[in-house]
Amino acid sequence: MNNIESPILQNIISSAIKVGRAHREILNGRLSRVFWFTGLPCSGKTTLAIELEKKLCLMDYKTYILDGDIVRNGICNDLGYTDIDRFENLRRVSEITKLFLDAGINVISAFISPLEKDRKLIQTIIGQSNIIEIFCNCPLSICEKRDVKGMYKKARLGEIKNFTGITSTYENPKKSDIVLNTEIQSVDECIKQILNFIQKNYSTILEIK
Amino acid sequence: MNNIESPILQNIISSAIKVGRAHREILNGRLSRVFWFTGLPCSGKTTLAIELEKKLCLMDYKTYILDGDIVRNGICNDLGYTDIDRFENLRRVSEITKLFLDAGINVISAFISPLEKDRKLIQTIIGQSNIIEIFCNCPLSICEKRDVKGMYKKARLGEIKNFTGITSTYENPKKSDIVLNTEIQSVDECIKQILNFIQKNYSTILEIK
Repeated sequence: MNNIESPILQNIISSAIKVGRAHREILNGRLSRVFWFTGLPCSGKTTLAIELEKKLCLMDYKTYILDGDIVRNGICNDLGYTDIDRFENLRRVSEITKLFLDAGINVISAFISPLEKDRKLIQTIIGQSNIIEIFCNCPLSICEKRDVKGMYKKARLGEIKNFTGITSTYENPKKSDIVLNTEIQSVDECIKQILNFIQKNYSTILEIK
Repeated sequence: MNNIESPILQNIISSAIKVGRAHREILNGRLSRVFWFTGLPCSGKTTLAIELEKKLCLMDYKTYILDGDIVRNGICNDLGYTDIDRFENLRRVSEITKLFLDAGINVISAFISPLEKDRKLIQTIIGQSNIIEIFCNCPLSICEKRDVKGMYKKARLGEIKNFTGITSTYENPKKSDIVLNTEIQSVDECIKQILNFIQKNYSTILEIK
């Protein structure tokens, strides 16, 4: 049965002061969480985010992907790539993620988020218990070889400043919930690992009878 | 039947390059739109937004409310109330609304959005065809009498600068999709008017067989 058809739930919503996250999660029949991919450029973050979203959609999860392209072309189009601007970019992304979470959506975020202090900021704003941190662990040499958008090449030539991995630091996270070895694991294997994690930790299908 | 159970839809999503708005709308069985409430402070925007959301939720629409409180405490907490900051506030709100729309969510926005140029900005970013503009039309004298948060009083005493209706202009919109006379119409009557509009214009329940 679709949860919305439950008279109990209809009553709960009608009498609520305001519809909140808990209501939405029950309406969706799914808990909402943030799947935060971190890793070097070309370590596989966006590819995996897209595949994960497809799988979750087919499992009837409500999902949305946030990544650099989508925010840099919109809400953060006033920001550059200085340290201050990068920090502000991540702050805004975290605040938006928090809104989506409140809306009952499972957010799939794909951002380099290179420094420990960046990931701390994200956790502070969103709340650590809401985040599943997924580290795409791949050696720099392999990422540079992939160089999907030719950015590494430009960074080596000095045409891009502050490029993570080349002229800017990436600090490997130490306590990610999921670590993927994206040098040797296939996309399918990585997705399987994430889905296993979800099944073990968030398999709760919310049903009202 | 829940759309997600359709083998056709499962196929469409599995073979998509990326899940997009159209997929989400089909998955939700509902089109996504923006219900943008504009009007003076205390004209009824937020009250109506909250009631509309409840009703839409019970009709199985995926919804989310954006209003001044939620953005001013989060993503826009670096902004003040100068003209430039107010404009930036609305720009960010519009960009966030666009993301929610893309996520297949029906966004209910409650912002004074006082000037014609503000509403133009919103339309430019979000796309006019996505927006149902709802004007809460209520005389200033009535809004000031309600003064829910005591803001009008503070504005009259000069304690708040640039307060819309007192020291800052509100330009009545000329072509709103829905005009509510919130001086005399009850909340129930207003909601009924909005739901009638939706039924006439967006009643399409998306179903795949």
